Amino acid sequence: MIVLFTDFGWRGPYIGQMKAVLARDAPDVVIVDLLHDAPVYDPRTAAYLLAAYLAELPSGAVLLGVVDPGVGSAARRPVIVELGKRWLVGPDNGLFAIAARRAGGGLWHEILWRPARLSATFHGRDLFAPVAARLAQGVWPETRRLDAPQSLRLDWPEDLAEVVYVDHYGNLITGMRAGKLGSDDRVAICGRALSSRRTFSDAAVGEVFWYENSSGLVEIAANQGSAAEALGARLGTQFDYGN
Amino acid sequence: MIVLFTDFGWRGPYIGQMKAVLARDAPDVVIVDLLHDAPVYDPRTAAYLLAAYLAELPSGAVLLGVVDPGVGSAARRPVIVELGKRWLVGPDNGLFAIAARRAGGGLWHEILWRPARLSATFHGRDLFAPVAARLAQGVWPETRRLDAPQSLRLDWPEDLAEVVYVDHYGNLITGMRAGKLGSDDRVAICGRALSSRRTFSDAAVGEVFWYENSSGLVEIAANQGSAAEALGARLGTQFDYGN
Amino acid sequence: MIVLFTDFGWRGPYIGQMKAVLARDAPDVVIVDLLHDAPVYDPRTAAYLLAAYLAELPSGAVLLGVVDPGVGSAARRPVIVELGKRWLVGPDNGLFAIAARRAGGGLWHEILWRPARLSATFHGRDLFAPVAARLAQGVWPETRRLDAPQSLRLDWPEDLAEVVYVDHYGNLITGMRAGKLGSDDRVAICGRALSSRRTFSDAAVGEVFWYENSSGLVEIAANQGSAAEALGARLGTQFDYGN
Repeated sequence: MIVLFTDFGWRGPYIGQMKAVLARDAPDVVIVDLLHDAPVYDPRTAAYLLAAYLAELPSGAVLLGVVDPGVGSAARRPVIVELGKRWLVGPDNGLFAIAARRAGGGLWHEILWRPARLSATFHGRDLFAPVAARLAQGVWPETRRLDAPQSLRLDWPEDLAEVVYVDHYGNLITGMRAGKLGSDDRVAICGRALSSRRTFSDAAVGEVFWYENSSGLVEIAANQGSAAEALGARLGTQFDYGN
Repeated sequence: MIVLFTDFGWRGPYIGQMKAVLARDAPDVVIVDLLHDAPVYDPRTAAYLLAAYLAELPSGAVLLGVVDPGVGSAARRPVIVELGKRWLVGPDNGLFAIAARRAGGGLWHEILWRPARLSATFHGRDLFAPVAARLAQGVWPETRRLDAPQSLRLDWPEDLAEVVYVDHYGNLITGMRAGKLGSDDRVAICGRALSSRRTFSDAAVGEVFWYENSSGLVEIAANQGSAAEALGARLGTQFDYGN
Repeated sequence: MIVLFTDFGWRGPYIGQMKAVLARDAPDVVIVDLLHDAPVYDPRTAAYLLAAYLAELPSGAVLLGVVDPGVGSAARRPVIVELGKRWLVGPDNGLFAIAARRAGGGLWHEILWRPARLSATFHGRDLFAPVAARLAQGVWPETRRLDAPQSLRLDWPEDLAEVVYVDHYGNLITGMRAGKLGSDDRVAICGRALSSRRTFSDAAVGEVFWYENSSGLVEIAANQGSAAEALGARLGTQFDYGN
């Protein structure tokens, strides 16, 4: 299984161009679109989402992650990261930093293999997709061990007390694991103090609350309404928590 | 074939998380995304769309339907509905009511099977997807016959004379089967009386008309323009019809 | 491999309905969504995008192209176009004109085969998808050679010096092949004269520039910003170029 995580957006040709390469190089491998609207140009925010979703993927999955504002610069190295029986393919720009740190660091490899044709601006299609296709079929391309990846030298916090994604319903997904809070804790955001609920139907219609979402993150929601609208919150809004 | 019908929207991780489960549990089954932007939190409106699209699906298809504002509450039961050689998997909240009534009621089964891990808020991923994966491979999970599903006790009309979906072009899809109207009938909406056309190119550019769409529903459109804008109509706008 | 190129948008049931037919008729063929938000009702603009992306597809690919405002009219003929070892299936309305001209014209065939049920408004699902499914499996449906397709009589320019797509990041994709310009050439658009860069990270943050995109087209971008916003440009905005 190859799982795609990008900031490409659903619009446009980019996902399709990448998948045409995957279909050519790994026609029998299942491709899953996990997220294509990670916050654009922002590997840091995306890293907390990616870490949460990675934990759910089955053993043997290859995650192809492309949030890559530094594409084409020599400073940003292409990598494979081994985390147990999962492989991450993408840029060494922090996108995989949180997932790796939570798994004890992982094994990092700089990708030396190059395709016959490498554009300056679309390594997702030209480099990372062919590498992911190979890994998903048990073929390891040429790499060099990377002992000190840039991603592991970033001073990003363990959890991120901000909104990292606003979903289709107006729910606010945060970068904070719910296990860090007690169920009696309140979340203070936009001048409001929110209690926790177990699920939507435990709240009154329109009530704003926080809960542990199905990926283990603190999420702020309104029952049958938009928490984003009710609070005036958006991507990057910070919050506090405690009793 | 597993066919997905949800109100998740294309944005966000939810479709991908559900498909990762399907890929894990049914790697050889084809997955088709039928609709992911059904009106949110609104099983009633979605039920008329679902009924129209279900008729086109090949025999043997499993439809995984998730428009589920009551997720996590004990009042809302998870069900499998057998309609001839098609199976519907999802909540007993009315979403499958119209399709079932038009097929003579169907056979309803409450799903008793539970996964090892069941979140309170994402039964689409944790419960319905594994069940659909099993059905698509001929495995029946533990169920109990449901003689009086809530869905069949709702007093929803046979057809719905309202706009149930506004598409990408600004066409207005309604919940009314075109067979209920004659081709000479007019549709009265937003103070206008519209005649029928067979196809777009039978209308002048910009002309607003109604026609039997390719799923058998009354649809209101403008040739190479947006009927929604031309009329000021939107989701939920009602209409009359007759000679 | 069947590659989809449409103006359906990601929203709504149309892509899914087409894919349900492909899954029924060609269950073992890989389907790739290349672009679904081509400019609506505009085969001319779409033709320049399609030509650029077609060149990247592997040999043997079948491209199912549906930008079809004339659907259901007798004047618009359904066609198969052979371009070397690639096949295009869709309407003879210009959508395939640029790709065919650049490949020396191609071989054109009017599709005479008809399905048991043909709606007046959705030939993508009812006619083109079943034909693409057959071609992808080596089955040729009934056709008649078409010596003078309408598409090859259009006086569309070889390249189009306008914005043909505004992507998710606000980048402006044009219908002009970059090989027509020198790297010292400037692009004049919205009262600005832009220099070229090789890749995003060669520009200052926020700087607007043009570059040869990964499909060989002139594209106008801003490093970590939106060129569309910075310039006030949009779909159809024209530009000049030269020294």
